[in-house]
Amino acid sequence: MTEPIRGYNFLGLTPEETDYDKSRVVILPVAYDATTSYKSGTKYGPAAIIAASREVETYDPESGRDIGEIGIHTAPEIEAEADGPAKMIEVVEREIARHLKNGKFVVMLGGEHSLTTAPARAHKAKFPNLSVLHIDAHADMRDSYQGSKWSHASVMRRVREIVPAVSVGIRNASKDCHQSIAADNCPVFWAKDVVGKSGWQDTALKNLTDRVYITFDLDAFDPSIMPAVGTPEPGGMLWFETLDFLRLVFAKKQVVGFDIVELSPIARLHHPDFLAAKLTAEMVRMVRL
Amino acid sequence: MTEPIRGYNFLGLTPEETDYDKSRVVILPVAYDATTSYKSGTKYGPAAIIAASREVETYDPESGRDIGEIGIHTAPEIEAEADGPAKMIEVVEREIARHLKNGKFVVMLGGEHSLTTAPARAHKAKFPNLSVLHIDAHADMRDSYQGSKWSHASVMRRVREIVPAVSVGIRNASKDCHQSIAADNCPVFWAKDVVGKSGWQDTALKNLTDRVYITFDLDAFDPSIMPAVGTPEPGGMLWFETLDFLRLVFAKKQVVGFDIVELSPIARLHHPDFLAAKLTAEMVRMVRL
Amino acid sequence: MTEPIRGYNFLGLTPEETDYDKSRVVILPVAYDATTSYKSGTKYGPAAIIAASREVETYDPESGRDIGEIGIHTAPEIEAEADGPAKMIEVVEREIARHLKNGKFVVMLGGEHSLTTAPARAHKAKFPNLSVLHIDAHADMRDSYQGSKWSHASVMRRVREIVPAVSVGIRNASKDCHQSIAADNCPVFWAKDVVGKSGWQDTALKNLTDRVYITFDLDAFDPSIMPAVGTPEPGGMLWFETLDFLRLVFAKKQVVGFDIVELSPIARLHHPDFLAAKLTAEMVRMVRL
Amino acid sequence: MTEPIRGYNFLGLTPEETDYDKSRVVILPVAYDATTSYKSGTKYGPAAIIAASREVETYDPESGRDIGEIGIHTAPEIEAEADGPAKMIEVVEREIARHLKNGKFVVMLGGEHSLTTAPARAHKAKFPNLSVLHIDAHADMRDSYQGSKWSHASVMRRVREIVPAVSVGIRNASKDCHQSIAADNCPVFWAKDVVGKSGWQDTALKNLTDRVYITFDLDAFDPSIMPAVGTPEPGGMLWFETLDFLRLVFAKKQVVGFDIVELSPIARLHHPDFLAAKLTAEMVRMVRL
Amino acid sequence: MTEPIRGYNFLGLTPEETDYDKSRVVILPVAYDATTSYKSGTKYGPAAIIAASREVETYDPESGRDIGEIGIHTAPEIEAEADGPAKMIEVVEREIARHLKNGKFVVMLGGEHSLTTAPARAHKAKFPNLSVLHIDAHADMRDSYQGSKWSHASVMRRVREIVPAVSVGIRNASKDCHQSIAADNCPVFWAKDVVGKSGWQDTALKNLTDRVYITFDLDAFDPSIMPAVGTPEPGGMLWFETLDFLRLVFAKKQVVGFDIVELSPIARLHHPDFLAAKLTAEMVRMVRL
Amino acid sequence: MTEPIRGYNFLGLTPEETDYDKSRVVILPVAYDATTSYKSGTKYGPAAIIAASREVETYDPESGRDIGEIGIHTAPEIEAEADGPAKMIEVVEREIARHLKNGKFVVMLGGEHSLTTAPARAHKAKFPNLSVLHIDAHADMRDSYQGSKWSHASVMRRVREIVPAVSVGIRNASKDCHQSIAADNCPVFWAKDVVGKSGWQDTALKNLTDRVYITFDLDAFDPSIMPAVGTPEPGGMLWFETLDFLRLVFAKKQVVGFDIVELSPIARLHHPDFLAAKLTAEMVRMVRL
Repeated sequence: MTEPIRGYNFLGLTPEETDYDKSRVVILPVAYDATTSYKSGTKYGPAAIIAASREVETYDPESGRDIGEIGIHTAPEIEAEADGPAKMIEVVEREIARHLKNGKFVVMLGGEHSLTTAPARAHKAKFPNLSVLHIDAHADMRDSYQGSKWSHASVMRRVREIVPAVSVGIRNASKDCHQSIAADNCPVFWAKDVVGKSGWQDTALKNLTDRVYITFDLDAFDPSIMPAVGTPEPGGMLWFETLDFLRLVFAKKQVVGFDIVELSPIARLHHPDFLAAKLTAEMVRMVRL
Repeated sequence: MTEPIRGYNFLGLTPEETDYDKSRVVILPVAYDATTSYKSGTKYGPAAIIAASREVETYDPESGRDIGEIGIHTAPEIEAEADGPAKMIEVVEREIARHLKNGKFVVMLGGEHSLTTAPARAHKAKFPNLSVLHIDAHADMRDSYQGSKWSHASVMRRVREIVPAVSVGIRNASKDCHQSIAADNCPVFWAKDVVGKSGWQDTALKNLTDRVYITFDLDAFDPSIMPAVGTPEPGGMLWFETLDFLRLVFAKKQVVGFDIVELSPIARLHHPDFLAAKLTAEMVRMVRL
Repeated sequence: MTEPIRGYNFLGLTPEETDYDKSRVVILPVAYDATTSYKSGTKYGPAAIIAASREVETYDPESGRDIGEIGIHTAPEIEAEADGPAKMIEVVEREIARHLKNGKFVVMLGGEHSLTTAPARAHKAKFPNLSVLHIDAHADMRDSYQGSKWSHASVMRRVREIVPAVSVGIRNASKDCHQSIAADNCPVFWAKDVVGKSGWQDTALKNLTDRVYITFDLDAFDPSIMPAVGTPEPGGMLWFETLDFLRLVFAKKQVVGFDIVELSPIARLHHPDFLAAKLTAEMVRMVRL
Repeated sequence: MTEPIRGYNFLGLTPEETDYDKSRVVILPVAYDATTSYKSGTKYGPAAIIAASREVETYDPESGRDIGEIGIHTAPEIEAEADGPAKMIEVVEREIARHLKNGKFVVMLGGEHSLTTAPARAHKAKFPNLSVLHIDAHADMRDSYQGSKWSHASVMRRVREIVPAVSVGIRNASKDCHQSIAADNCPVFWAKDVVGKSGWQDTALKNLTDRVYITFDLDAFDPSIMPAVGTPEPGGMLWFETLDFLRLVFAKKQVVGFDIVELSPIARLHHPDFLAAKLTAEMVRMVRL
Repeated sequence: MTEPIRGYNFLGLTPEETDYDKSRVVILPVAYDATTSYKSGTKYGPAAIIAASREVETYDPESGRDIGEIGIHTAPEIEAEADGPAKMIEVVEREIARHLKNGKFVVMLGGEHSLTTAPARAHKAKFPNLSVLHIDAHADMRDSYQGSKWSHASVMRRVREIVPAVSVGIRNASKDCHQSIAADNCPVFWAKDVVGKSGWQDTALKNLTDRVYITFDLDAFDPSIMPAVGTPEPGGMLWFETLDFLRLVFAKKQVVGFDIVELSPIARLHHPDFLAAKLTAEMVRMVRL
Repeated sequence: MTEPIRGYNFLGLTPEETDYDKSRVVILPVAYDATTSYKSGTKYGPAAIIAASREVETYDPESGRDIGEIGIHTAPEIEAEADGPAKMIEVVEREIARHLKNGKFVVMLGGEHSLTTAPARAHKAKFPNLSVLHIDAHADMRDSYQGSKWSHASVMRRVREIVPAVSVGIRNASKDCHQSIAADNCPVFWAKDVVGKSGWQDTALKNLTDRVYITFDLDAFDPSIMPAVGTPEPGGMLWFETLDFLRLVFAKKQVVGFDIVELSPIARLHHPDFLAAKLTAEMVRMVRL
């Protein structure tokens, strides 16, 4: 008789609610933090989100349904590869591909943003006409950084080499980011035009294909509500406006997967962990299954 | 000759300003934290509020008066009863009843929210047609929780068994909370309809009787301005709109007592303590004496 | 296919090594912290010990064996009862009795010390001629405290009502503790006679029966190596001398169970968690199975 | 051959970009914290701003220029004088006067606000028709405090004895502050009339002369985005509205110098440091050279 | 009727035990921290010691007496003078002189070490043949530091200008310290000859007169048991050996007063506060009244 | 005129004392932390050591000399390579080789232990008959770890492939570590035989060649004096005994270089940083130049 340890899964669900075969959604924690340049600690992000998720209310009064009914399996944490990001991305890609093949909707919890190359590749392989919605404070469009093409600062450059992408919430971009943005004519919605503003949402959606993968770097949020990130840029997005936009995306597009990355928990300050957990739960709730 | 220790009373007032007999208001710190389910630490709340209050400006330019003139006595902290919440609530109720009998306006500083059953009972005994204004992120309407009817998660269920109540700022409610809310037809003003919105205030007031007791769970505030709570739900109330609503309540109703509960101080982050202290001071200033 | 989440069990063992039926030892985490008088936080202790245990080396060069071969099952955390310690103790006692009936060696990870009444009762029921070895900085011999007979400060008074006990490492005892110690003629080995001293060990053993339950309050250690406790008294026991004494006890007596209590983790300071995990592992290794 | 230590200058610029003779701007860190009344720690402010500034993006897409092209020299930290604030102010004044004589634009990074008397004197000596724009949560208009005329709580009283000043963002003023404000007819723009409001900006500018020195106490910001200050008053200014106002000031007036004071870094919470660094960089960018 | 706030006095004594007129001992908290060069925070020391003291056991089994019977009055905190240390020292000296005139035994709780000049002067005025026992990691014999003769780094130079002194536990001394030590032929017992060693104690006593004032800088202790100091030098004194030495001093000399200085509390690490409180209580117990 | 920023070099020396050409010793900070398995943060180690070093006393009373007279140049921090440890080791090796060629004595400040392969290679190239003295809590002898041969857990396996090594202070070794230790007959001095013991020192020296490189992993120290490491194993070495052993090594052998690695600073706890800085300074003082 093996008893399950209650709560060490996303939302603290019961064994029936988390059984892999019956689950529609797989939560994939990737505790990886090797190329962070400023404040490190994103390898503790997935565990913090899962711990906080146990306090998130699972009942939805509108539908009268409990989120556990969907079936949400929390996969074991993928262990870090010490030989650098290229190898790590390969391991994660293989793991995601396996879950996709099993028909699961995969939610990757990072970990550093460089990982997103893995789900971008895996989802592109399954959904040819994919586009990526990139919510972030930083453009992450450097060609390479600290001697690596696989750094977090280059991730959207790598992703855009595979699929088109739309960036929302950006408020920091290096010179070569700006130049590549200009050259590639790739759509960026700057924070100053997004926060507290309307009208941009429909334009953003027009730039996406029908099938969308969302990569959500938590530093897109304002540091007042999300201080637990590596490089917290002032002037970010707030809670209600972000949820409203996401609801629109899930309603108008077929969202086929998403990741929540870059939570770097701060000891004794648990509201960022809780917000990340609640965001993840809300997005899972929005998935059209 | 016994010298007073300056500052170890609310607002750091002088001996004359804090003399019990001359005081109109009694601050009652209750350092109790036994049923907290997520992050504990509310037993340190009262001391943190009192420490921070010494930095709150006591002068009011509009009236030209200093708040110390009211007479504000800080009672000794009520020590915890280790045998569980039921017994603790009885001790606190007796203490509050004693102050009410002496004609004092009582401000309870928590401590966990389960304590509010105590002032609800004591004030109901003195003010028969009482209603309760409940400002909180959570409905706290479970019938019982963790095997206890006296848990913080059940406190408004217990309170509503005694007096009618209006809830404001709610953004998390369990299934049985939603059902009991629906069944009881009890008024709830959800955070999404309250934050940055107008119009709801008058409706809320209409649901209250003329004599009002206010229970203020600090997690009603947005975590950006009040991170030091056990379960910080995103999407909460902000400073100016909260004060404006409170001013309206104190102007239109006879507020007969209030509590500020659930501050769980975070080491080295003192803005939440200061906000709680300033809120307490502002509410004391609003009391019509 | 349900994949196990690696590492969320004591020592991060494999599914085979942690299967309940094959396991000889059960680790029972009890995240309870309701009567603590000074610094609270022991409810986070069991999770911290389990997290740190994943870094403890499992291989034993002397025997050439890996500790996982014993079979160590980590039971789910027992959830807190909000109605007070008396009820909580009953729940824990029932759970331990169940594992004892299944022939398991039970290791309880606290949580606050008041819990120890539960294993004392459960083990006494199975092992009639039991005695208790009590390693602690505090005598915990008050008749009651904060209105409760079940407070952490009274636990050894309750335990001694059931079984004889020997206390080691004590350096703080209230007046009624001293008096009850004198009256009961119960053996106490004070820290000043124990730390860095020899000779006392054999006398301590003579006062125990052949079957021994060990309750280990981590504040017995010196605060330099164990600061993460509620009331850290200077002048405590050090690492090697404590292990040497424990080895002697396990060699000379039949140790039938033990608990490690009162870890109150400090954010960002992980050496106490690691020491507690290593102590637990070393004691499990010492068990004669 | 002496190699420069990269990054230990503001923005982490290259040796050429920071050469004193070629630099137009001098950053002057003053690690002084001796008269703080509530939470201390402003002496760690300058180092935290400089460390965080290395993550601030230096490229400006509008002008296509990099901020390093201006030439920004970071002077060595001025060491504290232990004999009290009067002496310290003299030392800092002399140092600023020296840089002004060399034609530099001086940016002082505090340290506590009492220091501002130094740049006020030094700039007044060079720019006779100077006025001061004072952005702060506190009026700082006490005649003396804790026995000193040079306390942070008196700094604007001292400054106004030299030059006229306009205060913006104020939400805490003692009785004698209010009285001296009334008596002196000195312009104050209270936070409740400023935050999220329009119209006040032009009036504020009208009260300033053409040549303006800006003293920016970081507690003017709302604690949600700037918790790392000694006395964090709720109801403060937000990011975009503050930058918009500053852009207006720099466009309409000749700003001849500024200081950013009162950052008191909080361990493990780096968004306040980053905001202070980005504010400093943005203001340097606004300077008309 | 003014109720006392229990616990906000040293050891949490009752009103009768703390009445000034009946008290033999006065605890004088001085929350001053203005000249600290490395890590600041000693102004929070006295409050931390008083808070922790409430957990110190007051009963003494050897004498069968409770320490409260002595009568221990906790005076209000002396507020800081913002104009620098010279003025602050004068204020503290006057206050101590007043208590000495009333026949009290004065225990000053710092605050930074520079304050010790105050009790040295006040006690010298009452006890002409006084000598000072100086327990510290640092010689503090600079002639001046950071432009001040009144810095913490010069305090023993100032004290030795008034009375002879013996230094114990020293392990850091600047060049001019060494030279002045050599020149003055003043006795210093270096840590390497003191920690874990015997024989030095009697020599130290011989260098003292019969009437002794003790100044105890907590950094004399090893950082393992006392990390909460400004400059924690490795290789310091341990608990039992320090108490043993103090017992000898109190037995052989007439100790007429003492201070405990330089506690700089660390958030969430309370063992240093507790040790400082227990040391103070033990020393009060040793006083021959 | 470029002014140096005082203090941002090891020991806060003057420009003359730190001039590269005149310096005999080069301090090389390597802020690298990519393969850490438990608690990360060693990338902040070098900056913390340099900051703390400014408080270390530079004067040596025995020789009457100041350590600055040696000439100690602090090189700029080597920036991380994001592509993994193999590449990083190459960069560091090249940099060390450059300094060795210039006749400098190189002190590498880590950073994680995996880096030590770099100085081992560079020194071996210059000093053919080199051996390595390895002071550590962990054997670090795994063949590979987390998929990499260059992990911190494999570093001594890699080093021993180049030069013979003696390990001191070890108290944690995995199964394959034990086996490779046995197979290679490589000398290990376990902590239990070293701490507080004598006799082992001479045996350790006999196993070393005349030219010795020392790699000092700070977790060799007991966690009571060095908690700021990734995996703090109880039962470690203490301050005086470690310095005594190092003095012996420097006296009997020609030490040609050393590194101090694995400091992972803990916010607000600065005694570990100070100890690491003082250890570095003491070892530099011991170098025979």
